[in-house]
Amino acid sequence: MQNDTLAKKIIEWRRDFHQYPETGFLEMRTASIAAGILESYGLELKMGKEVMSADHCMGKPNEEETKKHLAWAKENGANTNYLDYFSEGYTGIVATLDTGKNGPTVAFRVDMDALPIYESTSENHIPLQKGFRSVNDNMHACGHDAHTSIGLGLAALLAENQESLQGKFKLIFQPAEEGTRGARSMVEAGVVSDVDYLIASHIGTGVPYMHVVAANNGFLATSKLDVSFTGVASHAGGNPEQGKNALLAAANIALNLSAIPRHSKGVSRVNVGEMHAGSGRNVIPDKAALKVETRGETSEINDFVKQQAKSIVSGAAAMYGVDYDMELVGEGISCTCSNELAAVVHESTVNAGLTGALESNESAGSEDATFFIDAVQRQGGYGTYCIFGTDLAAGHHNEKFDINEETLLPAVEILYNAASKLCKK
Amino acid sequence: MQNDTLAKKIIEWRRDFHQYPETGFLEMRTASIAAGILESYGLELKMGKEVMSADHCMGKPNEEETKKHLAWAKENGANTNYLDYFSEGYTGIVATLDTGKNGPTVAFRVDMDALPIYESTSENHIPLQKGFRSVNDNMHACGHDAHTSIGLGLAALLAENQESLQGKFKLIFQPAEEGTRGARSMVEAGVVSDVDYLIASHIGTGVPYMHVVAANNGFLATSKLDVSFTGVASHAGGNPEQGKNALLAAANIALNLSAIPRHSKGVSRVNVGEMHAGSGRNVIPDKAALKVETRGETSEINDFVKQQAKSIVSGAAAMYGVDYDMELVGEGISCTCSNELAAVVHESTVNAGLTGALESNESAGSEDATFFIDAVQRQGGYGTYCIFGTDLAAGHHNEKFDINEETLLPAVEILYNAASKLCKK
Amino acid sequence: MQNDTLAKKIIEWRRDFHQYPETGFLEMRTASIAAGILESYGLELKMGKEVMSADHCMGKPNEEETKKHLAWAKENGANTNYLDYFSEGYTGIVATLDTGKNGPTVAFRVDMDALPIYESTSENHIPLQKGFRSVNDNMHACGHDAHTSIGLGLAALLAENQESLQGKFKLIFQPAEEGTRGARSMVEAGVVSDVDYLIASHIGTGVPYMHVVAANNGFLATSKLDVSFTGVASHAGGNPEQGKNALLAAANIALNLSAIPRHSKGVSRVNVGEMHAGSGRNVIPDKAALKVETRGETSEINDFVKQQAKSIVSGAAAMYGVDYDMELVGEGISCTCSNELAAVVHESTVNAGLTGALESNESAGSEDATFFIDAVQRQGGYGTYCIFGTDLAAGHHNEKFDINEETLLPAVEILYNAASKLCKK
Amino acid sequence: MQNDTLAKKIIEWRRDFHQYPETGFLEMRTASIAAGILESYGLELKMGKEVMSADHCMGKPNEEETKKHLAWAKENGANTNYLDYFSEGYTGIVATLDTGKNGPTVAFRVDMDALPIYESTSENHIPLQKGFRSVNDNMHACGHDAHTSIGLGLAALLAENQESLQGKFKLIFQPAEEGTRGARSMVEAGVVSDVDYLIASHIGTGVPYMHVVAANNGFLATSKLDVSFTGVASHAGGNPEQGKNALLAAANIALNLSAIPRHSKGVSRVNVGEMHAGSGRNVIPDKAALKVETRGETSEINDFVKQQAKSIVSGAAAMYGVDYDMELVGEGISCTCSNELAAVVHESTVNAGLTGALESNESAGSEDATFFIDAVQRQGGYGTYCIFGTDLAAGHHNEKFDINEETLLPAVEILYNAASKLCKK
Repeated sequence: MQNDTLAKKIIEWRRDFHQYPETGFLEMRTASIAAGILESYGLELKMGKEVMSADHCMGKPNEEETKKHLAWAKENGANTNYLDYFSEGYTGIVATLDTGKNGPTVAFRVDMDALPIYESTSENHIPLQKGFRSVNDNMHACGHDAHTSIGLGLAALLAENQESLQGKFKLIFQPAEEGTRGARSMVEAGVVSDVDYLIASHIGTGVPYMHVVAANNGFLATSKLDVSFTGVASHAGGNPEQGKNALLAAANIALNLSAIPRHSKGVSRVNVGEMHAGSGRNVIPDKAALKVETRGETSEINDFVKQQAKSIVSGAAAMYGVDYDMELVGEGISCTCSNELAAVVHESTVNAGLTGALESNESAGSEDATFFIDAVQRQGGYGTYCIFGTDLAAGHHNEKFDINEETLLPAVEILYNAASKLCKK
Repeated sequence: MQNDTLAKKIIEWRRDFHQYPETGFLEMRTASIAAGILESYGLELKMGKEVMSADHCMGKPNEEETKKHLAWAKENGANTNYLDYFSEGYTGIVATLDTGKNGPTVAFRVDMDALPIYESTSENHIPLQKGFRSVNDNMHACGHDAHTSIGLGLAALLAENQESLQGKFKLIFQPAEEGTRGARSMVEAGVVSDVDYLIASHIGTGVPYMHVVAANNGFLATSKLDVSFTGVASHAGGNPEQGKNALLAAANIALNLSAIPRHSKGVSRVNVGEMHAGSGRNVIPDKAALKVETRGETSEINDFVKQQAKSIVSGAAAMYGVDYDMELVGEGISCTCSNELAAVVHESTVNAGLTGALESNESAGSEDATFFIDAVQRQGGYGTYCIFGTDLAAGHHNEKFDINEETLLPAVEILYNAASKLCKK
Repeated sequence: MQNDTLAKKIIEWRRDFHQYPETGFLEMRTASIAAGILESYGLELKMGKEVMSADHCMGKPNEEETKKHLAWAKENGANTNYLDYFSEGYTGIVATLDTGKNGPTVAFRVDMDALPIYESTSENHIPLQKGFRSVNDNMHACGHDAHTSIGLGLAALLAENQESLQGKFKLIFQPAEEGTRGARSMVEAGVVSDVDYLIASHIGTGVPYMHVVAANNGFLATSKLDVSFTGVASHAGGNPEQGKNALLAAANIALNLSAIPRHSKGVSRVNVGEMHAGSGRNVIPDKAALKVETRGETSEINDFVKQQAKSIVSGAAAMYGVDYDMELVGEGISCTCSNELAAVVHESTVNAGLTGALESNESAGSEDATFFIDAVQRQGGYGTYCIFGTDLAAGHHNEKFDINEETLLPAVEILYNAASKLCKK
Repeated sequence: MQNDTLAKKIIEWRRDFHQYPETGFLEMRTASIAAGILESYGLELKMGKEVMSADHCMGKPNEEETKKHLAWAKENGANTNYLDYFSEGYTGIVATLDTGKNGPTVAFRVDMDALPIYESTSENHIPLQKGFRSVNDNMHACGHDAHTSIGLGLAALLAENQESLQGKFKLIFQPAEEGTRGARSMVEAGVVSDVDYLIASHIGTGVPYMHVVAANNGFLATSKLDVSFTGVASHAGGNPEQGKNALLAAANIALNLSAIPRHSKGVSRVNVGEMHAGSGRNVIPDKAALKVETRGETSEINDFVKQQAKSIVSGAAAMYGVDYDMELVGEGISCTCSNELAAVVHESTVNAGLTGALESNESAGSEDATFFIDAVQRQGGYGTYCIFGTDLAAGHHNEKFDINEETLLPAVEILYNAASKLCKK
């Protein structure tokens, strides 16, 4: 395949995914189409529950929502040959290319999910101009459409050049990175248990166009917690003493979570992002729900904050005699990239004629690719997280977010070059 | 008109109103139909802004919602002859019957609004069985459909018997009693400025069937307050210090309002019934809204609680550097019924063959009819609030609420007897 | 004994007790002197642990403080013949006069303790002018000096007139009424288990001079709670996460106790009167202590508040991972006086030429005499709490509090008259 | 002077100061004795208000306490020749040695104050064994006795060797470093306005014996705040609504200060170290006081926390209708040592045969020497903060704290060597 052809295809794929965005654990159309393409290149596929532990999916939509989306996917061009694998919301894929020759196993991880953001209808917005603006209320406002396409492009190059390579390549298409919900499920299913090198990647994040960070450290460990309280309603005028006030328990949570002590070993965060409580002005509130997140510069610090949060939630429930539930709906850990592998990516960058940095330590929020990297490192392998700089029309998670599509081909090439360097015959 | 005929009509009206329930300040269909009936009996009508002060409506729906409901009313059988008076949500009526003979002015106040409750679909529920279950998502779950019908029945009797009466009768059909929002607006418009006697009434409330309380004291003064905070959003991981946290301000409000001191002079209440804050787990919340109510055994006590609430709200906003808004969306005062007038109602009760009590002091929540009674008493007149006992299928504001329709005719007769006693020629 | 002589004696006693005020469970000098006088009139004495259950003393000073005060009492004129009974702080006395004739058992209860208030040094203050201002840092600022003297005067009259009486008289001298700490201990020791009539009394409380309330209802049930938290200290700059913050647990207690819901069945109160926490600006506080009190119009309401308080305290401790202790250091119940006995007191009042009221329902704080009244009523007897009005120089618990001593003799006479009426031969 | 002699003197001075410890702004005896010694070496003295701005003293004891301590100083061996300068609590000294030859001005800053800690009476405690345990309830538990002695030893060496030096030397003896209260006052008085090089120093802090850190960065900026509230007391049972509750305002402060957001630019801290409120269990509390401190990795961060604290305090006061006062009783800023000057100290260390580190970035709490360093750097000069490691019997601020006195002479020599290097003729 000529580069021109590949570049055109990657852009085409990306625009298609962009137009039909699907949120976490619902990437049925996306995954089914990706599966078709991957199989067309001769890769061997494992899909759905083969590559995901149901017990470790976090914040997965309920059955009703999942079914409803399945219908949508069918009506909107999903590849029905593969839809059965993904119909219950286990939408991960691992596509393997085994050269048949001894050599290392090199994995690449990309993600596929979109965000519940209503895409801009501004005339300046390129996806609108070029006709691939979202058809629904979701939006690829974080570039995961690009990531999926890069993964497919990489599959094409690897397949085409497999004669000159040795070892094994695994392309991991992960669901539900937003909210750090999907990675752990694939790691627990063992998809990287045989992996020697793992490269995760992201586009954008403020890195300049045609500049590549080979190792992005600084991800904060994080836990996403849904907390709910159930008390007893009563008439606020007539029988206030008969109520068990879930709203007041929740108000205590909000205040006291915020008061969790700072940690001397590094950055910590805690936020109560949402609170909804009560059912009427004159009723002692019997329901309250909070969306909480904790973060830490290290997993140890995040665990400290999470443990404190648990005590505070159970204590506040006891104070008000209400029942509570605390569900973990997302989690990411901290990790440090492997210098050895970062050096390979950096060399590939330079060879591709781009500029790059070996390492960045700027805190860049949280990511659950860290579960993959950490797992590979624990078994003696190497992992890194690289960032392909691009021009952004607006910041990530903004309704006007858009990338420069010229970034896609070089990204594929750099990953391919790294792969071929690691597995040169 | 024979009693049988009248009884049938009252029940027919009540079922019609029941089937098309409208919430406060949206009683367009109800009011337009009532107006037609009242005019058919020869009463002189004042409607809409003629009888309501726009400045004193509390918690009135916005223009969009009002317009939307107007369309609904048109499509659902409103009497279009009168709809113009009510189209902006000023849905009150004062229907006057002037005998032309010297005598006192006697007013009766009924209310017309329903609740945003989804009516039961249980097979046991009489309105379902008899085909007059609500056609929309509202429900007459507090008996105001009966009140409106009683008012119309009373108009019929007064009109029929006007020869034997002297003085003047004013039938006041009030919107938005729920949330204590509508009465003050009519009082401020002066509709009782010429009234000597005022009788407000309610059905049910736990009083036994065919038993009548002539003076129900014990209403708590109350204020309904909508509090909102506007802060500044920021990324909870990246820039927590740039946010102004509206959720934490609101959590402080909830706790500290509940901690307002008890009052040594009598019963007080305060409740934060609802709280909604924040827009995402990882965003410092920039919006929060609370639904609050205060109550007091006397208006003085309620004012104390309300003043404390104001200090707490503005103080909490200052603590978090957020803007606040505090809107009064409902208010009721305390009052004491006039014994002299209660005696007349009680005598009418006994004469009608029912049992009754002169007075009840059980706290019965709050009511804005108290504004009418208080206003009449201030100008030297007499007011009372009477309760017509009935069998209830379920408590007030319950989805299975229903009354015994046999109560309606006696209620009309007792009110008529009281009127005729006060204005006997 | 002539009335003149008795009046002089009562005043003399009162001034002596006033000058040597002793706080609860430390009334060693007072009790020892009272014991000597009572025995001189021929009454049979039971003292100390004979009349007090050690297990039911609340808020009793520790051994060190008790020993220290014993030394003070010895140096300040205690009657050493009796001091052994009181040396461990069990300072109650029951003095019995048995006429040997069949008849009812009538008990009178007075209290003896002073307050930790520094008495006024103003020139206008009568105790200063007349030379009986307190010699220490305590003060009889609630009239218990008068109560003890009235009890002694009553003993004199009963002893003198025993020939004309039948039945048995028990004079109960109770320690530690302040903080409602001492009564329960005497009730549990069984001192009223044989009593048919019990009259408790108080001087002042706003009742006018020479006016007597025969039955003072309206005492609020109350519990006095000492709450303490023990956490872990750590350097607030260096290792904030290693601390367990007792101060923040306590701050939560203060706020949430205040937010305990109002009770629909009657008056409730809760107050965190004192809070002390922490040991240095730069140390995470590991200690906190709060003084709390709850009240209720009925014992049921007070129990509701106390139960809520317990949940809140244990929940807040769990929130912050700190240990807590919650000690009951005082308690009073609600009660209703017996009309039959009140009528006797009222008749005695009128016969003594004073004015009186059968009953007052004004809330008058809390009292642990209610334990005595309640116990007697439970076994079928009668109890009442009467108030002897007097002129007050300043309110109770004020440093300038003082009574009109002319009230003392009539008070003795009214009690004696009631006794003789109940036990006339 | 021979080194043996000097070493003996330094130890003698240190033991004397240790035995008579004086807390901040009360170092009258210490300063007067130091002044005598400094003048004996021929240094020119400026003292008291000559070197301190009264407006910038923070957390200074009141007049009564100051007077009381003056009497103590007189009775305990103060040098009365100088006591007048220090009698009002302005206890700073600047001792200048001008060589009369052109050259830079080099300043050294030491501190003199002790802590309100009761010194150990354990037999193992060297000061006890050797007879110089504290005579009062304070203790030199942070080594400032050593610092003062080192300053005096340095004066001796400089004076003895002035012929071989050029430029000017200023020895700054600062009061009240504990609580970061005294430095700013001397800076504002202009004592370093002519200084080119400033070396502040400390002993201990965990640095090993005979090891010297030439530049200790990492001090946190800090503010010490005393917050008090004044409300209105009322009887908690009788008239709770008449109170203005200072305790609840303070509880809100404690919680909400702790909830001040973390700062993305670096370390922040906030602690409510002490809270005392209320005067009796049954009284609505009208007084509350809190001891608060804030910290930040930079002065900008600390200012952010302090500003938030101000909003929270004034907002909470408004919530409860209480008055508040917020007094700054201590402050330190952040700073970065000058590498150039650190290099000189490090060279002196090595030349003295000790080991050393150029720089340490471990967070080491807060210090107000930073005001001196910052002021010198702002005018183009150089400053550093060095630490002389020693063996510690127990941690700083511990009742068993003690140093190895063998550290003192090398410390003096290293400072002298640095001075002579900077001012070699």
